[in-house]
Amino acid sequence: MSMSFSFQVEATQGAARAGRMITPHGEVETPVFMPVGTVATVKGIPQDLLEELGVQILLNNTYHLYLRPGVEQIRKLGGTHKFMSWDRSILTDSGGFQVFSLSELRKVTEEGVSFRSHLDGSSHLFSPESAMASQIGIGADIIMAFDECTEYPAERTRTERSMELTLRWAERSKNAFEAHKHEVPWFAERGKKSQALFGIVQGGMFPNLRKESAERTVEIGFPGYALGGFSVGEPREKTAELVANTVPLLPENKPRYLMGVGYPEEIVQYARMGIDMMDCVLPTRAARHGLLFTSEGRLTIKNQRFASDEGPLDPNCSCKVCKRYSRAYLRHLYASNEVLAQVLNTTHNLSYYLDTMRRVRQAIILGENSVSLPVVRSPHLSAT
Amino acid sequence: MSMSFSFQVEATQGAARAGRMITPHGEVETPVFMPVGTVATVKGIPQDLLEELGVQILLNNTYHLYLRPGVEQIRKLGGTHKFMSWDRSILTDSGGFQVFSLSELRKVTEEGVSFRSHLDGSSHLFSPESAMASQIGIGADIIMAFDECTEYPAERTRTERSMELTLRWAERSKNAFEAHKHEVPWFAERGKKSQALFGIVQGGMFPNLRKESAERTVEIGFPGYALGGFSVGEPREKTAELVANTVPLLPENKPRYLMGVGYPEEIVQYARMGIDMMDCVLPTRAARHGLLFTSEGRLTIKNQRFASDEGPLDPNCSCKVCKRYSRAYLRHLYASNEVLAQVLNTTHNLSYYLDTMRRVRQAIILGENSVSLPVVRSPHLSAT
Repeated sequence: MSMSFSFQVEATQGAARAGRMITPHGEVETPVFMPVGTVATVKGIPQDLLEELGVQILLNNTYHLYLRPGVEQIRKLGGTHKFMSWDRSILTDSGGFQVFSLSELRKVTEEGVSFRSHLDGSSHLFSPESAMASQIGIGADIIMAFDECTEYPAERTRTERSMELTLRWAERSKNAFEAHKHEVPWFAERGKKSQALFGIVQGGMFPNLRKESAERTVEIGFPGYALGGFSVGEPREKTAELVANTVPLLPENKPRYLMGVGYPEEIVQYARMGIDMMDCVLPTRAARHGLLFTSEGRLTIKNQRFASDEGPLDPNCSCKVCKRYSRAYLRHLYASNEVLAQVLNTTHNLSYYLDTMRRVRQAIILGENSVSLPVVRSPHLSAT
Repeated sequence: MSMSFSFQVEATQGAARAGRMITPHGEVETPVFMPVGTVATVKGIPQDLLEELGVQILLNNTYHLYLRPGVEQIRKLGGTHKFMSWDRSILTDSGGFQVFSLSELRKVTEEGVSFRSHLDGSSHLFSPESAMASQIGIGADIIMAFDECTEYPAERTRTERSMELTLRWAERSKNAFEAHKHEVPWFAERGKKSQALFGIVQGGMFPNLRKESAERTVEIGFPGYALGGFSVGEPREKTAELVANTVPLLPENKPRYLMGVGYPEEIVQYARMGIDMMDCVLPTRAARHGLLFTSEGRLTIKNQRFASDEGPLDPNCSCKVCKRYSRAYLRHLYASNEVLAQVLNTTHNLSYYLDTMRRVRQAIILGENSVSLPVVRSPHLSAT
């Protein structure tokens, strides 16, 4: 059996690292922003266009695929890579976060989380064991331990109890994964390679609990570590402080994944702190609402002032949308509620995010000082 | 001033012709199926993909663009080619048909048609003169005379009165066009070329009126002729009979355009009768409803029987959808109400229509007998 997963740091610049992951479906250069393909599609974007944009890894959501078309269906079809015809890397979340945020009726016990489907109200249970079974059946390259995402705000005792539960679930996740990892649909055809299971650090907004969670998760031992429980409503200064404190507690030779982040200036900021992987629905969801990220700040394309604007969306962007269409046309498509608005807006926003990450990576490799990392203008934070 | 518009018949096979139109924005091989890009977008399909599909000419709807973003807006932006970033040929309808079918409150007088916008209820008047002004401002390569599309069913006296009105409007359309054709936005930059104004034959379901309309429209004189007033609810045998009777009355050296047609087997049938141009929302609209045209008949992709089907949509199709994705995946996208379903379904249906027309053209050029024109299987007519 050859190595299923590897990660190499190739250059550093302060805390920031440029690295390279190798998964059973190819290489991923880090730091990397991973587009979200909820139900095995990045909304509105064909797979060949994702390739053209340089996407090396994308997300699928276990909760959604579990409900539709179902894990056994995907397994029968050879796993999610074959199902969605995407031969590069894929990561799945554990389903835990989605259950917390989407299900009205959920109940957490030591065993796991019982919940009702947002589609038809049917009853289901996710546990560390079932989350592993689902993620193995779906067959992404990187899968996540089943955790409890602590709500915000939460008291310290509640947060600690939640963290302890996540640690017990991490052990159970690892045990279940080790027992069944050979059941991934592409095990034989990929030279008996298996998936990589990442652990998740919780601990809410308490630095000491974050520290304890990090140390004890590392003790269990995973090929990569995620920081979970952020983007739950806390102030972004809090996130930044906790991430900065936690990163040094994680092994240098393993990838670090900050879940559910963020705005363009945030993904740059966290890459500087030594985060290697990030994902967020923001570029794709914002695109659907006509909110576009550019080198000149963000803009809301439905604004009347773009109706006669013959210029490109972003004069400094070389994506196919900026090279071909005017703001006036994009504004017209959005105002007319045309599907092409979503397709083109999403194409640009993804291009902007991926390009931002590539420039960060390049700066790290060239050893440029941190000031020369891409500057993301403040309008991102204020203007709409 | 060089020639603005030309049409050459390059080969014939029975009544069918293979020809070539040259417009100020390039060549169009006929017979041709023209995708409908209502508000300057073929719903969900980026322009580079239309180019890849081999689209040489597409439609814009004057009514829709007149209301949003407005003719003066498009003129200011250089015309619809620049506006939508499409440098190949475009045809606009006159707005007449849309007014008849979309406006609740319309009133026809000798002057024109007054109507209320379906968007905001505002009052407007379309006349031959204003329809020419709108179409010149939008700046398609081929524009249409303003006509009255006679409703179905209609009595003979009513149909004759309507036909006479259309003939008077045809004269007025031509006069207005000749007086203002140099005002097209790209007049100077395209070497003082202007648009081509086509006449429209009406006459309802009465062969004698169709004949009279054809003869008197030809007498007025246009560089191309359309058959209007079909696809209004009449039986398709009736359409076929009237088209077959009318085509021989039109000049051999001018393109013939059958408006608003049709199913795959119909576009083949009408090309055989000597029709050179057709347009229809069917391939794009059907795609949005999951109805897909294939060499094996048509299929409704949401059907449960496709949930585990790993085969391509159409094993005989070489479009990028059929080459990459399985029916199971397309079914999943449709069942999940994903935008990518519309993008991929539309891509395939357009590819199927364009490919069908290319094969018809090839058969005419090779002088194959009519039996060897592409056979479109009967399931198109029955199964869903």
